[in-house]
Amino acid sequence: MTHKSGRHFLQLPGPSNVPDRVLRAMARPTIDHRGPAFRDLFFALQEELRWIFGTQHPVLVFPSSATGAWEAALANTLSPGDAVVAFEQGFFASRWAQVAARFGLEVRLQAQDPRRGVDPQAMEALLRADPGHEIKALLVVHNETSTGVTTDLEAIGRVVRDSGHPALLMVDAVSSLASIELRHDAWGAHVTVCGSQKGLMLPPGLSFTALSLAALGAHRSASLPRTYWDWSEQLTAGEQGSFPYTPATNLLYGLREALSMLCAEGLETVWARHRRLAEATRRAVGAWGLDVFAEDPWASATVTAVEVPDGADADAVRSVILEAFDMSLGTGLGFLKGRVFRIGHLGDLNDLTLLGALAGVEMGLGLSGVSRTAGGVQAAMDHLSETVT
Amino acid sequence: MTHKSGRHFLQLPGPSNVPDRVLRAMARPTIDHRGPAFRDLFFALQEELRWIFGTQHPVLVFPSSATGAWEAALANTLSPGDAVVAFEQGFFASRWAQVAARFGLEVRLQAQDPRRGVDPQAMEALLRADPGHEIKALLVVHNETSTGVTTDLEAIGRVVRDSGHPALLMVDAVSSLASIELRHDAWGAHVTVCGSQKGLMLPPGLSFTALSLAALGAHRSASLPRTYWDWSEQLTAGEQGSFPYTPATNLLYGLREALSMLCAEGLETVWARHRRLAEATRRAVGAWGLDVFAEDPWASATVTAVEVPDGADADAVRSVILEAFDMSLGTGLGFLKGRVFRIGHLGDLNDLTLLGALAGVEMGLGLSGVSRTAGGVQAAMDHLSETVT
Amino acid sequence: MTHKSGRHFLQLPGPSNVPDRVLRAMARPTIDHRGPAFRDLFFALQEELRWIFGTQHPVLVFPSSATGAWEAALANTLSPGDAVVAFEQGFFASRWAQVAARFGLEVRLQAQDPRRGVDPQAMEALLRADPGHEIKALLVVHNETSTGVTTDLEAIGRVVRDSGHPALLMVDAVSSLASIELRHDAWGAHVTVCGSQKGLMLPPGLSFTALSLAALGAHRSASLPRTYWDWSEQLTAGEQGSFPYTPATNLLYGLREALSMLCAEGLETVWARHRRLAEATRRAVGAWGLDVFAEDPWASATVTAVEVPDGADADAVRSVILEAFDMSLGTGLGFLKGRVFRIGHLGDLNDLTLLGALAGVEMGLGLSGVSRTAGGVQAAMDHLSETVT
Amino acid sequence: MTHKSGRHFLQLPGPSNVPDRVLRAMARPTIDHRGPAFRDLFFALQEELRWIFGTQHPVLVFPSSATGAWEAALANTLSPGDAVVAFEQGFFASRWAQVAARFGLEVRLQAQDPRRGVDPQAMEALLRADPGHEIKALLVVHNETSTGVTTDLEAIGRVVRDSGHPALLMVDAVSSLASIELRHDAWGAHVTVCGSQKGLMLPPGLSFTALSLAALGAHRSASLPRTYWDWSEQLTAGEQGSFPYTPATNLLYGLREALSMLCAEGLETVWARHRRLAEATRRAVGAWGLDVFAEDPWASATVTAVEVPDGADADAVRSVILEAFDMSLGTGLGFLKGRVFRIGHLGDLNDLTLLGALAGVEMGLGLSGVSRTAGGVQAAMDHLSETVT
Repeated sequence: MTHKSGRHFLQLPGPSNVPDRVLRAMARPTIDHRGPAFRDLFFALQEELRWIFGTQHPVLVFPSSATGAWEAALANTLSPGDAVVAFEQGFFASRWAQVAARFGLEVRLQAQDPRRGVDPQAMEALLRADPGHEIKALLVVHNETSTGVTTDLEAIGRVVRDSGHPALLMVDAVSSLASIELRHDAWGAHVTVCGSQKGLMLPPGLSFTALSLAALGAHRSASLPRTYWDWSEQLTAGEQGSFPYTPATNLLYGLREALSMLCAEGLETVWARHRRLAEATRRAVGAWGLDVFAEDPWASATVTAVEVPDGADADAVRSVILEAFDMSLGTGLGFLKGRVFRIGHLGDLNDLTLLGALAGVEMGLGLSGVSRTAGGVQAAMDHLSETVT
Repeated sequence: MTHKSGRHFLQLPGPSNVPDRVLRAMARPTIDHRGPAFRDLFFALQEELRWIFGTQHPVLVFPSSATGAWEAALANTLSPGDAVVAFEQGFFASRWAQVAARFGLEVRLQAQDPRRGVDPQAMEALLRADPGHEIKALLVVHNETSTGVTTDLEAIGRVVRDSGHPALLMVDAVSSLASIELRHDAWGAHVTVCGSQKGLMLPPGLSFTALSLAALGAHRSASLPRTYWDWSEQLTAGEQGSFPYTPATNLLYGLREALSMLCAEGLETVWARHRRLAEATRRAVGAWGLDVFAEDPWASATVTAVEVPDGADADAVRSVILEAFDMSLGTGLGFLKGRVFRIGHLGDLNDLTLLGALAGVEMGLGLSGVSRTAGGVQAAMDHLSETVT
Repeated sequence: MTHKSGRHFLQLPGPSNVPDRVLRAMARPTIDHRGPAFRDLFFALQEELRWIFGTQHPVLVFPSSATGAWEAALANTLSPGDAVVAFEQGFFASRWAQVAARFGLEVRLQAQDPRRGVDPQAMEALLRADPGHEIKALLVVHNETSTGVTTDLEAIGRVVRDSGHPALLMVDAVSSLASIELRHDAWGAHVTVCGSQKGLMLPPGLSFTALSLAALGAHRSASLPRTYWDWSEQLTAGEQGSFPYTPATNLLYGLREALSMLCAEGLETVWARHRRLAEATRRAVGAWGLDVFAEDPWASATVTAVEVPDGADADAVRSVILEAFDMSLGTGLGFLKGRVFRIGHLGDLNDLTLLGALAGVEMGLGLSGVSRTAGGVQAAMDHLSETVT
Repeated sequence: MTHKSGRHFLQLPGPSNVPDRVLRAMARPTIDHRGPAFRDLFFALQEELRWIFGTQHPVLVFPSSATGAWEAALANTLSPGDAVVAFEQGFFASRWAQVAARFGLEVRLQAQDPRRGVDPQAMEALLRADPGHEIKALLVVHNETSTGVTTDLEAIGRVVRDSGHPALLMVDAVSSLASIELRHDAWGAHVTVCGSQKGLMLPPGLSFTALSLAALGAHRSASLPRTYWDWSEQLTAGEQGSFPYTPATNLLYGLREALSMLCAEGLETVWARHRRLAEATRRAVGAWGLDVFAEDPWASATVTAVEVPDGADADAVRSVILEAFDMSLGTGLGFLKGRVFRIGHLGDLNDLTLLGALAGVEMGLGLSGVSRTAGGVQAAMDHLSETVT
């Protein structure tokens, strides 16, 4: 078996690189999830999760991927036949809509330029056009991981609240939480779901759900079937510092460590760091003569989808880079298959690792014959040098 | 903050002690779950999981607790209103039945002496009494963790098969797999579900599901809603060596390590080890003058529920032991609350650790005033000495 | 390759069991040993090392086994031909004397009952008989690891100080520090050396040396050659928070963690814990009808050397126990080869692990035919139950 | 406490980055160093160490830094007053000479251009000028870590052998072994010493010594005092698969893992990788308009000392880089203090990490005002792209 020297560059838009500290924290012995030490862990995590989501309400933690939290959000608040609105934001938004459809909900899919965030004015019009309040929920992806496009969630939340429409604003924050500013309570989100393997810097295996009073109200009358995903059982057990079934204890250890790192860095600093590294990435893309899929100002702070020229295959570029430089980039998903590759720049990341990653992309583009224009790394370095703190 | 010297004794019937090797394996960096290295891991795990379940069919792995696999078993094979039979085996059997009820299935609960395994003759009678094949599934817990009672699954499987009744035999093997003999294909199980944190020696966070052709057949016409738990998506993705959504990669690393340890020890040896340590435990209980909840020959090889005398509180004993000797024992669940404590003796365990654990129980019983009869550890040592290999 | 289930019992008198926390701390990335982060680590460790030795002076840390610190103690304070006194305490005392001899020192070996500690009165007589102060150093092993015999170091120190004799009192505290009370400054020790793998709960690879002003005075005129072991270079570099050559950084991480665990438990508690577990061990030995090599009150709190009956081979017992119960015990060293086995009961240890270990010894004695008398574990349990806190 | 996101860049010429695999291997529980499992480890390591040194003779392993192995090399083969030759290669060569002087050897220091390797012709002349064979040893640093200059050791060895002079060729391979081609037996080295924290990718704490028959012959009559460093005790114990005193067991675990990684990569590949990354580094330095301290063709494959312009302070540059980009570079040592900084490019390293590091240097030079010429990273990328395999 051959061995590749050095550290693999995992520049996916999730899983992001898990810090050593988190991996070591996860290596602590598993404890009794019904005992007093676990209870202390539970309540400490609740405090920190509320802080990271910007909420005063409990945050639910499922042993599952974020996909499960999508399902939980719907099954806990809606009843068969309820109408929900989804936007054609991209691959993940569509998948969420499919989940809704499979649960017998009436999905009203809104056309949407995938290069832009969801338009607050369109949202306003949509709600105004539903005076009978048929729409029970609005599914919005804060940062669509497949396109690298961020929606102005604060504006969306304002429009929904100002409309007086009772539809629940459900937010997928999978690739934004702990990387891009998000304030669950203040911005009026009713359900915000996230996974562990992006901004939270953990391995995959946990999902998170923030709630609102309105969401809890809807929960009481929602009739879709659920057991594993049942919020009430989680909330009841949570009051005692436990879970309704065995939790993924060791991932919770890692979560505690990750949250304490984020807290030590400071959330504003974390957000600013992501914006700065994203800008450096986009400058590199520009210097290569390539296009970022997202239009300004919706380009994401956590992932950049880079379009390859017509005739080129983005996955071939990814293969060259994986083979030659031991770096994993994100593939194009859905209609972007082969048309873009995605550079993840979120989670535990600093200037030099990003520059190493961009160097790998620049060399890989050259080796693939896709772009022989150098200068991307240089442009990124220029930006980072100018903005060093 | 004070510190307790030495290693905590985690003698629950799950989570069991996670071996250091497994914890270290889990600390490897997370990789791209859509890349070639992951594919290799996936297929290697499939081979090994089929071996541990004794099946030729794919084994599904969900990022979830085993509770989720219960739900998945039902939602993937049944339709609203279908009749399923469950047995009053104990706390976990009842919970599975509740899941079925919440999904709109007609649950036919069979009375059952909780000190004994499910009776093959009763099963036979039950199936014979259903000539119209209304019963679509039989929910059987192989080893009921709350009571320490093991059902003769081979006999049950034979009866079901011989009956010609098409009901699916669904097995909860949560606290038996990789500890107590179980042969999914050979014994005629149709769906067997398990979690990671018991015989498989992992932290919690993964569930496993073994299938049969009949189960797959039922799956095609089952109409209960499902997305996260959908078997088809898992099977389709699995053919490519991937999952339909982000898997719990680092737990899969641990799984690989655990399975390789089980393979190196040998499955027959693993089963015999559990039987031997369980017998030593029961001899200790007998010497203390206490009763094992399970009747012979149904006493479990993985967990022993010990009854405390009338007037005593089993949870008070557990508290004394936790405080004085830093050992966690299992609590009594459901109707056994306060009446039993449970000693887990499964997973990564050897003679000396078990004897240390039994010493802690013996001393704790004395300190609690519940049993001042010594000699339990001695009885266990005698058995282990006589049967040393 | 076969695999043994469960955790190996490492009941040597060192290396002792390294706590998981320490192993994880050691797994942190190596840092620049000349940078600011290392400096912080260095000074924090100095504080904590002075606390654990009970000294106000610097504590030197060598990347070496404790054997190296023996050599350093001599080479830094003495000149060729200087007379040193050593006592026939046992294997390790003799080895230290051999080191002295090989460096051209005149070793005056004092006869000594190895079952007893060094006698303060004998020491007093010895010093009185040297009015010309030919003796430059007294080599005393605080706790002789090969015999399980502890010397009353406080009394020895008092005698040396009261005598007015300028000989340096050099102490081997390898198997006593952080387990048995020792106060370097208060008891008048001039050089105290230790290793990492016993009471300090680390893997081997570090040695420690505490000093006195008199030792530093002697150092200035000592003419034995030295470079690696040179105290002055360590002291000079230490003022800047660094080492004269590359230190064993990752072991220092572990040291920090171990010292913080000892601090959280409290040193008095640590000492009391060792005494209590040692007493339980001796009660077990007595119940087996075997003899502890050490005479009262010199029996060690960290290691018990158990004599096997004439005709029996202690190493055969150890082999049986290793094979049957996966436990490592200490071998007999020097003249005790085959006559004793040694049970280590120091470092990161609690009641249940000790009882598991004693159960292994009891069963192993039975299987070997050496002692068929049971009751040792019972006697230990009785003691531990009576003295539980 | 603040927290810096992302991974620290440790670009010292040692310690090099310790791979996660090695850190995890070191986290295995410490075992009995006198038991059978250790014996297996010992003999496996001997095989692998002989392979990495290119020797058929035993390789000695001390728990010490490489400084200790210098001392051991001298003390085991020489007697007071023996003449040894050293060359003014740089800081570490001088330190080795000082060790010799402190042990009472007669050190003949040869002038040497520090920008070049030791000249085989000068060596030849030197030996020819010593017909009486007064010179007993030649101390040659294969790769002087402080200057980044590599000596052609094969040529030196040939000259020494051809000369017929019996002086022992002693080699410091601290920053060359496992990175730069070195063949102990074939090239005629008599003693080759190394440490663990460079090409071997381990944390510091172990030293290694390869021998020759002539060195063993000299050992038998050498009269310098030694105990800890005594080769004979190591050789004798080694025949039984053990050490004369407690070894640094957990570092040995890491060594095993590191050697298996080197073996899987292939030694020729490892050497070529170092040469390629070094060339990329030098191209970057050239593009910045700065000078590599070493002259061609002696520039090292493992470390590049970069001269800063007159008036600039290399340590100030290092501080800026550490502060702004979380990267540690090597300081100038001895007469190069402040005049150079050193980039380590050895051990576990790949293209993208090196490019990240060079980006950090380039930006740091700009921020420091030392070199505002960009293009270094670009030059390195060009080289790496052209030579990608």
